[in-house]
Amino acid sequence: MTKRTNITDAIVEFITEAPDTDVPDSARDIFRLSLVDWVAVALAARDEPVSQITRGTAEEDGGNEQAYAIGLNQRQPARAAALVNGTTSHALDYDDTHFASLGHPSVAVIPAALAIADKLGASPKAFADAALRGMELAVRIGIWLGRDHYHTGFHVTPTAGTFGAAMASARLLGLSADQTRSALGLAASTAGGVKAQFGTMGKPFHAGIAAANGVEVALLASRGLSAAQQGLEGEQGYGETHHCRFDDFAFDGLGETYLFENVSHKFHACCHGTHAALEALISLRNEHWIRPAEIEEIEITVHPQYLDICNITNPDTGLEAKFSYQMVAALVMHEHDTARMDTFNDAVCQDAKILALRDRVRVKTTLLMAESAAGVRIVLKGGTVVTRGHDLIAQQEYEIREERVRAKVASLLGDATADTLWQEVAQMTELPSNWMQCHLAETSD
Amino acid sequence: MTKRTNITDAIVEFITEAPDTDVPDSARDIFRLSLVDWVAVALAARDEPVSQITRGTAEEDGGNEQAYAIGLNQRQPARAAALVNGTTSHALDYDDTHFASLGHPSVAVIPAALAIADKLGASPKAFADAALRGMELAVRIGIWLGRDHYHTGFHVTPTAGTFGAAMASARLLGLSADQTRSALGLAASTAGGVKAQFGTMGKPFHAGIAAANGVEVALLASRGLSAAQQGLEGEQGYGETHHCRFDDFAFDGLGETYLFENVSHKFHACCHGTHAALEALISLRNEHWIRPAEIEEIEITVHPQYLDICNITNPDTGLEAKFSYQMVAALVMHEHDTARMDTFNDAVCQDAKILALRDRVRVKTTLLMAESAAGVRIVLKGGTVVTRGHDLIAQQEYEIREERVRAKVASLLGDATADTLWQEVAQMTELPSNWMQCHLAETSD
Repeated sequence: MTKRTNITDAIVEFITEAPDTDVPDSARDIFRLSLVDWVAVALAARDEPVSQITRGTAEEDGGNEQAYAIGLNQRQPARAAALVNGTTSHALDYDDTHFASLGHPSVAVIPAALAIADKLGASPKAFADAALRGMELAVRIGIWLGRDHYHTGFHVTPTAGTFGAAMASARLLGLSADQTRSALGLAASTAGGVKAQFGTMGKPFHAGIAAANGVEVALLASRGLSAAQQGLEGEQGYGETHHCRFDDFAFDGLGETYLFENVSHKFHACCHGTHAALEALISLRNEHWIRPAEIEEIEITVHPQYLDICNITNPDTGLEAKFSYQMVAALVMHEHDTARMDTFNDAVCQDAKILALRDRVRVKTTLLMAESAAGVRIVLKGGTVVTRGHDLIAQQEYEIREERVRAKVASLLGDATADTLWQEVAQMTELPSNWMQCHLAETSD
Repeated sequence: MTKRTNITDAIVEFITEAPDTDVPDSARDIFRLSLVDWVAVALAARDEPVSQITRGTAEEDGGNEQAYAIGLNQRQPARAAALVNGTTSHALDYDDTHFASLGHPSVAVIPAALAIADKLGASPKAFADAALRGMELAVRIGIWLGRDHYHTGFHVTPTAGTFGAAMASARLLGLSADQTRSALGLAASTAGGVKAQFGTMGKPFHAGIAAANGVEVALLASRGLSAAQQGLEGEQGYGETHHCRFDDFAFDGLGETYLFENVSHKFHACCHGTHAALEALISLRNEHWIRPAEIEEIEITVHPQYLDICNITNPDTGLEAKFSYQMVAALVMHEHDTARMDTFNDAVCQDAKILALRDRVRVKTTLLMAESAAGVRIVLKGGTVVTRGHDLIAQQEYEIREERVRAKVASLLGDATADTLWQEVAQMTELPSNWMQCHLAETSD
C-alpha cells in the first residue's frame, strides 16, 4: 500500500482548470450511450415502489422549483430531485456497470449533474461535460479504493459515486479550487453504503443518496462551507477509514484517457451474472440457426461465485427467473427478448416448452473462469457440438454498442420514443429533463 | 472480536415496545440538563459562519413548513431543519460529550427528534422520551463500535449519532418493528464522518448530517422503504465495514440503565483537553484564595496526546488562546469567566498581567495520566506548594451539575433568559422550538 502525495490536486485540476474542449470524441460517444441508457432505465422505473416512495417524500417536503424529478410535474429543490432520480434510475438494476471499478457510474452522477444543471439553467454542453468528468472520477476513485473496499462490504456505486456526483456538481457550479477541495472533503464524510442492502430497496436508495449528497456538499461548498483539504487520501480521511488500497495508478492519465469508456451496458433485464452466458448463447443460436427442438443439452460454465446468486434451478416467479441460468438460457434459445422487463413473468415459469428446455441446461463452475466471463457448450440431437465463450469486459465496436443500446431503449420505451430520444441525445439542444418530462407524459397511462 | 447474534432485536424492542414510563428519573434529570445545555449552545451559535451557510441552503430550497430551524422565521421541511439545527448546535464545539463513547450525543439526536416532533406536533413528553432513547442508543452504539473505529479516523458523533437520530425519529413516528429495522438498516448506509474534518466547518456539519440523515431514513422507512434487516451487525453491514470491535457488552442492561447519564457538559468555552486542568486550578484558587501575584509557578501534567492539540505557548488570537494550557491557566487564575465565549479574544492575548502569569505556567506529560484527567501543582512565592487532580469522567452530584449548567447558560444567554429557559425545560409544556424562537427574537440585534 503506497500513498500518493496528493490525488486531490489532480482531481481539483481536472474539475476546475481543464477546458471542455480537451475531451476525446470516443468518450463523448460513450457518454451519449450511457445517457440514453440512463434515461430509458429511469423512465421505465417510474412506477417501481421505491421510486414512488422517494417521490412521496419529495412531495411532502416541497420547496422551490429548481430541478426535474422523474414522475413529478412540479420541479423540486436540486437535492430532492437528485435523490428521486438516482433512486428511480437504479430501481430496475438495469443501468450501466464499470467492471474495473465495480460500480454503476451513471445512476450516481447523472442525476446530480442534471439537478444542478436544471437549477442553474446550464447549457446541455456544460451538463454533458460535467457529468462525463464526474463519471470518470467515480470510475477512477472506485479503482483507487480497490477490491478490499468492495469485498469488506462497501457498495462502490454510492461510495465512489458520491465523489463523482460532488465533482460533477462542482464543475457546473464553477467552484474555485478551494471550494472544490472542500466539496471533495465533505463528500468524504457523506459517501457511504453497505452491501448488506443488496436485495432490498436500500440498493437503489444508494444511488439516490450518492447523487443527493454530491449535490448538497457542492452547494454548501459554494456558500463557503470549508472542510478537510485532503479528505480522500489524507490522514484520518476516506481512504484510511474505508479499506482503501491506495492504488494510485488509478489516476494515471487523468484528463487524457477516459477509463469510463469501458463501461458496460446491460442488455438483458436479468441478473448481470447471467449476461456473459446469454451473449454466448445468442451468438451460437444466431450463427447456427439452432432451434430449441434440436437441442440435446446446454452446458454453461461460470465462476463459482455465481452459484449462490443466479442459479435458481426451479424458479416460480418472474423475479426468480432473472436469477436462473437454466431459465434465461431456455428463454433466449426460444428467442424471447431478454432485454424486455416483461419477459420475466410468472406465467413463463409454467410454460411447458420453456421448462422442457430448461431441464436440459447444466451449470458447471471453474475458478479459472473470469468473473465477467462464461463458456457455453451446446450438444445438438444429431451429435453436433458447438461452443462459445464471452467476456463482458471485452468491449465491442462502437457501432455495435450503439445498435444494442438503441434496441434496448426500444424494448423499454417503444420504437417511436427510442428514435426521438436518440435524436435528442445526439443533438443535445436541451437538457435531458425537458425530453424526459415529455416522454413520461406520452407513455403514462 | 465476538459477534452477538442480534443486537438489532434489542434496539428495535427498546424503540418500539418499551413504554415511556420505564425510564428512571435520574436519566430524565440528566436529559433536562443536556436539553438546556443544547438549547443554549445552539442559540449562542446562530451567527457563526457555518450556521449562516446551512440556513442559506435551507432558505434557497424552501419547502413546506414542518419544523423550526434556528435563525429562520419560517419553518422548514424536517430534514432541512435537522441539518441547520445539528450544524448550528455543534458550531461552537461547546455541547456535551460522552467520554465512554467518544461522541457528542445531543447535537446529533436532539435536532432529529425536535424536527420530527415539530412536524408531527408531538407532545413535549413524547419528544423527550424519544430524544433520550436516541441518545442512549448513540452512546451504546459508540461504545459497541469501540476505540478502533475512532482511532482509524471515524468521528463517533455522526457515525453512532446517525443511528441514534434515526431511532429517536422512528420512536416519534411510531414505526412498526419492521419499519424500525429498515430505518436502522438505512442508517447503516448513511452514517459517515471522518476526523480529517477536525478544525474545519466540516466538524459541525457532521452533527447536521447525522440529524438530517436520521430524519430522512426514518421518514422513508415510514413510507415502506425496506432495507437490510441487520444493517448494523450483519454480514457486509456497518460493523464489518467500519472497524467495529463488536463489543456487545455495550448493550447489557439496555432499557434498565441509561449510560447516557454519564454525559459530560462543557463548562469552559475552550478546548476540552484543557478542562480537567481548569477544574483543578479553579478548585485550588477557590480553596486557598490564591491571587495571581502570589504565584511563583504553575505546573500542569496531562496525557501526552494533548501536546499537539492544546499547548500553543504563545497564542495571538482568541481562537489560539482556547488551545493554550498556559493561557487558559492564566485567565482562570485572574478569575476571567472561561464559560463565556468572549473571554477568549485577541486583546487578552496582549494583556501584560495575563502574559506575566502565562509565562509562569509549565506543561508536563505522563502516559500514566488518564486522557480525561489532569494534575496541577502551584508553587506560591512564600514556598507553599498546593496540588490537585481532576478527572472529567468522575461525575459530580446532580445538584452541582445543575448549578453549573445553569451558570453556563447564564454566561451564554444572560441571567433572565437562563432562568426562563430553565423553567421551560423543567415544565416541558411546549416543544423546545417554541421557546427557542422566542429567546432568539429577544436576544437578536
